Amino acid sequence: MIPADQDEAVNLFEAQDPRQLLAPDGLDPLVRKVVLNVSLPSLRDNRGDVDRVLDLLEKQSGIQNPSVPFGMVPRVSEVLHDGRGRLTVTLAMKESGAELIDVMVGDEVASNFALAVDLGSTNLVLYLLDLHRGVVLEASAVENPQVAFGEDVLSRMHHCEKPGGQAELQKVLMDTINGALAVLLQKHSIEGRQVYAVAAAGNTAMVHLCCGFSTRRLCREPYSPVINRLQISPARALGLQVHERAVFYALPNVGSYAGGDALAGILVSQMHRAEKFSVLVDVGTNAEIVLGNRHWLMVAAGAAGPALEGGVVRCGMRAGPGAIDHVQIDRGSLRPTWSTIGGLPPKGICGSGLIDLMAELFLSGVIDERGKIDRVAENIMESDGHQAYRLVPAEQSGTGAPIVLTQFDLENLLRTKAAMYTALTVMTRQAGLSFGDLESFFVAGTFGSYIDPEKAVTLGMVPDIPLERYRTLHNSAGMGACLCLLSNEKRRELEEISRRVTYVELNVDGDFMPLLSAAMFLPHTDAAQFPSVRARR
Amino acid sequence: MIPADQDEAVNLFEAQDPRQLLAPDGLDPLVRKVVLNVSLPSLRDNRGDVDRVLDLLEKQSGIQNPSVPFGMVPRVSEVLHDGRGRLTVTLAMKESGAELIDVMVGDEVASNFALAVDLGSTNLVLYLLDLHRGVVLEASAVENPQVAFGEDVLSRMHHCEKPGGQAELQKVLMDTINGALAVLLQKHSIEGRQVYAVAAAGNTAMVHLCCGFSTRRLCREPYSPVINRLQISPARALGLQVHERAVFYALPNVGSYAGGDALAGILVSQMHRAEKFSVLVDVGTNAEIVLGNRHWLMVAAGAAGPALEGGVVRCGMRAGPGAIDHVQIDRGSLRPTWSTIGGLPPKGICGSGLIDLMAELFLSGVIDERGKIDRVAENIMESDGHQAYRLVPAEQSGTGAPIVLTQFDLENLLRTKAAMYTALTVMTRQAGLSFGDLESFFVAGTFGSYIDPEKAVTLGMVPDIPLERYRTLHNSAGMGACLCLLSNEKRRELEEISRRVTYVELNVDGDFMPLLSAAMFLPHTDAAQFPSVRARR
Repeated sequence: MIPADQDEAVNLFEAQDPRQLLAPDGLDPLVRKVVLNVSLPSLRDNRGDVDRVLDLLEKQSGIQNPSVPFGMVPRVSEVLHDGRGRLTVTLAMKESGAELIDVMVGDEVASNFALAVDLGSTNLVLYLLDLHRGVVLEASAVENPQVAFGEDVLSRMHHCEKPGGQAELQKVLMDTINGALAVLLQKHSIEGRQVYAVAAAGNTAMVHLCCGFSTRRLCREPYSPVINRLQISPARALGLQVHERAVFYALPNVGSYAGGDALAGILVSQMHRAEKFSVLVDVGTNAEIVLGNRHWLMVAAGAAGPALEGGVVRCGMRAGPGAIDHVQIDRGSLRPTWSTIGGLPPKGICGSGLIDLMAELFLSGVIDERGKIDRVAENIMESDGHQAYRLVPAEQSGTGAPIVLTQFDLENLLRTKAAMYTALTVMTRQAGLSFGDLESFFVAGTFGSYIDPEKAVTLGMVPDIPLERYRTLHNSAGMGACLCLLSNEKRRELEEISRRVTYVELNVDGDFMPLLSAAMFLPHTDAAQFPSVRARR
Repeated sequence: MIPADQDEAVNLFEAQDPRQLLAPDGLDPLVRKVVLNVSLPSLRDNRGDVDRVLDLLEKQSGIQNPSVPFGMVPRVSEVLHDGRGRLTVTLAMKESGAELIDVMVGDEVASNFALAVDLGSTNLVLYLLDLHRGVVLEASAVENPQVAFGEDVLSRMHHCEKPGGQAELQKVLMDTINGALAVLLQKHSIEGRQVYAVAAAGNTAMVHLCCGFSTRRLCREPYSPVINRLQISPARALGLQVHERAVFYALPNVGSYAGGDALAGILVSQMHRAEKFSVLVDVGTNAEIVLGNRHWLMVAAGAAGPALEGGVVRCGMRAGPGAIDHVQIDRGSLRPTWSTIGGLPPKGICGSGLIDLMAELFLSGVIDERGKIDRVAENIMESDGHQAYRLVPAEQSGTGAPIVLTQFDLENLLRTKAAMYTALTVMTRQAGLSFGDLESFFVAGTFGSYIDPEKAVTLGMVPDIPLERYRTLHNSAGMGACLCLLSNEKRRELEEISRRVTYVELNVDGDFMPLLSAAMFLPHTDAAQFPSVRARR
């Protein structure tokens, strides 16, 4: 559930707590605080102040040769004397070794917070973490302000080519993150300077837009990113209003096609450690598909999902308050019942609602195998010159207009589901596998947790395997970012995953187009591939 | 030879070339440039631009995971494309690993320069190095502008306690270094942005004054430094006008007593690797004495040498143009002959000249064993109420005034030489050694190379061991700084030395005062300790 503003914020972790994904002693945060009782200088021991702090730190915590930024040197000395030797050092555990980023008088180990951000193209989800206790204090979501510059990432990248466009997009994003963070911090009586780390997961374009890196080459053949594995960097360089020496970590991307969000899904699913094979589908504005096990991992940029996120389908909208997320249709009267996110009057239909609706239309015979509206009934009408199914009459709608799904929308959805299934088919075939070999089918992405796998199978969007093999990863992008803040081992595991993933180009496969045509059918031209659907109709 | 201005600059490396101190393949500079031919992105290989540069760098040069500052990321990408894949990366080989500090189109490996600075309390010596070829292009010297705030370091540290005093001292030093560097660069048609590294060696106080670190606790018991082992830092943080990402390295100090200049002496002498014992005396404004071998190294703050550097002795001056550096006195006429640095009319007497003069006065019988002027002659006169020896009459002097050494000056020099000899005696005794066990006696420091050991022995300032055991290290502080720029191995060797050195407090030794009294005699109350002097008189 994605609340639109702070007042409606809910704890997104009711379903999943990042601690459950860590070993019991697995808390080893990106930023660590250590309290030290350092002996003061004497005639017998006149080591330098900074040297004596580092010596004890190494002895006490095993952290060797942390780097001390030049500007921190005088401060360490002052704090050492101000605190009569008792002080707390803050260390960012960077790739190249620990870096001392703060020092305070006395014991301040509990003052250690961080921010994880799921950089969705449409929604941003923020998680405020307590790194000392290893918990998520609260999560909140806001719309990505870059939506105003283009619903899809491609049009935003075009905006970047205007003078100042790139800086503008970066700034609106930072302003929104800083604003949402400020609200979270105020609620928990935490100050910005107590936030020492920020981790962000997003697709390759979003990470570029977040860092202010040029997307000029990312949006054109051969779609090359400026960087995929950004190192731990100063958060202030991005304009984040956190501690002045806080660090920023972007989850790595792989090429232009697999973002840190998808890699986070692998990390959360642990499919990269399983002996048996799994598939992971990250359904966002763009969909990525991962197939593999502990020995190999392949990724493909799958069927893009804008049809499922609003923008393409006229009644579509992002998963937010007032979005219809589930639909049932009475087989006899063809009357629908539906539920909305937050229980508000409906404003549109989000991805899971669209899948439900199309599947119900099919099962109740409103549409035929080709996705054509085939019935005459009370709520079958014409809209914009197309046959349409009216899900919500105007008087019940939150917008004052009826919510309808047209024949045109249905064709878009059919293409989307066919592309997804074809991608899955080509990928498993290339690997010499069949769908039956899949032990798990993970669904990640913002609204992945709301998709009813039975409905998706009914449409022939995903394979007809036992439903218990379908597993939702909830917001694995946000969860992955949280894990990278809470555990350096998990962060390294993620980086290892990024190096293991191999990209496969699916539409160069000679079978792709024939398979796509065969999949433009509900559930499929080869109904034998979907025995459970045949039984259900 | 220390020229006062650029026009008189001479190559201080006529006597010593840092390359002679490196193994034939020992050039491994602090900043390294690597030229790369990186493949451009394609549909088959759309790694990030920065990632592909780092991948090739690792493959080609073995440099693993160099850190890439956030601000460098866009530039690497632009240069990669501007150069159609051919580019030069510049890497600072920091303790924590390599850091990418510059990137240029094409092959620019030859554009790699550095600055070494001997941060003397009185004189600064600058060395412009070509890191690509591993040579010193030129050296020059200027007076330390902080002299205007106090001849000795202690009064400068007191100046630091005035509001703005510390910043003021730091700034005048930077202005002078920047100015002297600019002259060197212009001569060699090099630009400041081609200088990627600066290394500086000085005593602990000078390093603090150079970095702008508080000396408040360094000048008071227990004399504790802010830091002894400063890590490689950004040069711009100090205000050095070099490349914006150039690095700064201060040679480590040990406590308040042994500066990086003394440690550089050990490195240059290689006494820390010898099986037999050596002594190293670093004669600057303050003198440090090191005793040891490959198994142990002890250091003591020895007799301070201001009497040898001008300021205490009225006719004394720093070793510079017009300073009398060598003196002979005719045994019969008692008339002197002398030479000056640069062959200019004499303005004063530098340390080596004072040692020569006092020894000659003693050998010719002008002064007795207590250092008292004991003869009547043409150039024995009265000056300021003291008996005095006129070395230069007014008409030959570069200042228009006669250059005379008074009885008062002689007493100061006697104290200085006695303190030095006593320190050496106590130290060798504490180690259970006698002077005969010393294989080498190294003399370092700005004017160390000009001291005639025979004369110093004559005064009883240094032990009466075979003269060939006395070896000059020339300007080992500057040489050490050069070595740290040219060789990362030498830099690590220096840091290893800094960890091995043990400090000994000499004046807590019960024998110190009686030994000092015994040494207040020429050459010594126990003439048997100086058999060669007895033979010479």
